[in-house]
Amino acid sequence: MEKAMDAGRQSEVTCVDFWANEFGMRVRIALRELGVAFEYVEEDLRVRERSELVRRMNPVHRSIPILIHHGLPVCGSVNIIEYIDEGWGEARLLPGNPVDRADARFWADFVDHKVFGAQVRFLESKGEEKDELVEQLKRLEEVLGDKGFFSGDDFGFLDIVTIPFSSMFHGYEQLGRFDLDVECPKLTQWAKRCKQRESVRAVLPDDTEMYELHKHLYGIE
Amino acid sequence: MEKAMDAGRQSEVTCVDFWANEFGMRVRIALRELGVAFEYVEEDLRVRERSELVRRMNPVHRSIPILIHHGLPVCGSVNIIEYIDEGWGEARLLPGNPVDRADARFWADFVDHKVFGAQVRFLESKGEEKDELVEQLKRLEEVLGDKGFFSGDDFGFLDIVTIPFSSMFHGYEQLGRFDLDVECPKLTQWAKRCKQRESVRAVLPDDTEMYELHKHLYGIE
Repeated sequence: MEKAMDAGRQSEVTCVDFWANEFGMRVRIALRELGVAFEYVEEDLRVRERSELVRRMNPVHRSIPILIHHGLPVCGSVNIIEYIDEGWGEARLLPGNPVDRADARFWADFVDHKVFGAQVRFLESKGEEKDELVEQLKRLEEVLGDKGFFSGDDFGFLDIVTIPFSSMFHGYEQLGRFDLDVECPKLTQWAKRCKQRESVRAVLPDDTEMYELHKHLYGIE
Repeated sequence: MEKAMDAGRQSEVTCVDFWANEFGMRVRIALRELGVAFEYVEEDLRVRERSELVRRMNPVHRSIPILIHHGLPVCGSVNIIEYIDEGWGEARLLPGNPVDRADARFWADFVDHKVFGAQVRFLESKGEEKDELVEQLKRLEEVLGDKGFFSGDDFGFLDIVTIPFSSMFHGYEQLGRFDLDVECPKLTQWAKRCKQRESVRAVLPDDTEMYELHKHLYGIE
């Protein structure tokens, strides 16, 4: 369970999220990377009805994460990271070079749609449809190549965007009956490197709890 | 049909697109707004197989638009606009204020997913499912409010993102049997204001041709 860095009620930054939300984990990691104090408000996604706060702050999608800064909402996880990075990080999480920045945004979109989409289909099919998931992870492995991090030598934007999905690696292996150390050895090594960071360790949930939750959500025995 | 501003073969900027692609129109409008000379390469989306150029430049999605700058591809229409704006516009298309920038990106995502998704379902249902489409257009009308442009007094990022969809307004009205001047009067007035710009006039296709193409694509009698 996430513990806020600043639990004060009058905190200027609030993050509304659910502990197992891969999109929201990104925001909490980014906040910690840049040392932004924030109040954490848990929205339990296991409950069907959204809270009054979420309905008010994100009436269009009623989704989380939501960052509330001085009372104003910012929605959409990548959008929030860019906002935090511009406001507190002197834009150091995103690459400085326009070509690299466009590339990072392209792959963030790939994770949002292709990887997440493949994960949903994998879980809905109770592990049957695993080829697409493995294919997308292998593609990420190619993008990583021999670099230490997606962002190069240092942990950055695309690492933050992608690392929450590693909390499902254990679930992928259990349900899909494959070994990610064999299929994507560079990706699993990268995840280990990321987990050495305090920001990542503080945010990523326990692998087993994460898988148990998803078994419950998708009706997997 | 799009005419390139610079048809030279060795142009440093190439835009690969299809004349009726709402996502690609954005890129061509942004290039013209910033006075960037570009070579235009037409990819006919009516043909099922993608060209060798598209398969090579966007192997992940095989989609257009693609901007090729000094031989390197940038993919994803919003991503491309940000790239052009940073490279040639001194970031003047996007709002200068981080809160407004996050807001503009949020609504760009809304157009990409909610408006476009509603348009697809409207066309697939041959006009039956029109309530969702009208609801999303009314939401855009609310966002516009009494401003001259989505970006405020001046034509900017969110206007560029949204205006291509106005080339389907005629088709919406014909197929859905409603009057957009009644349903969304501010939005239709805004579209007229945008069409006074040379960049928009040069890129937006004829309303009737646009609708005829979509009737063909969706098997509408």
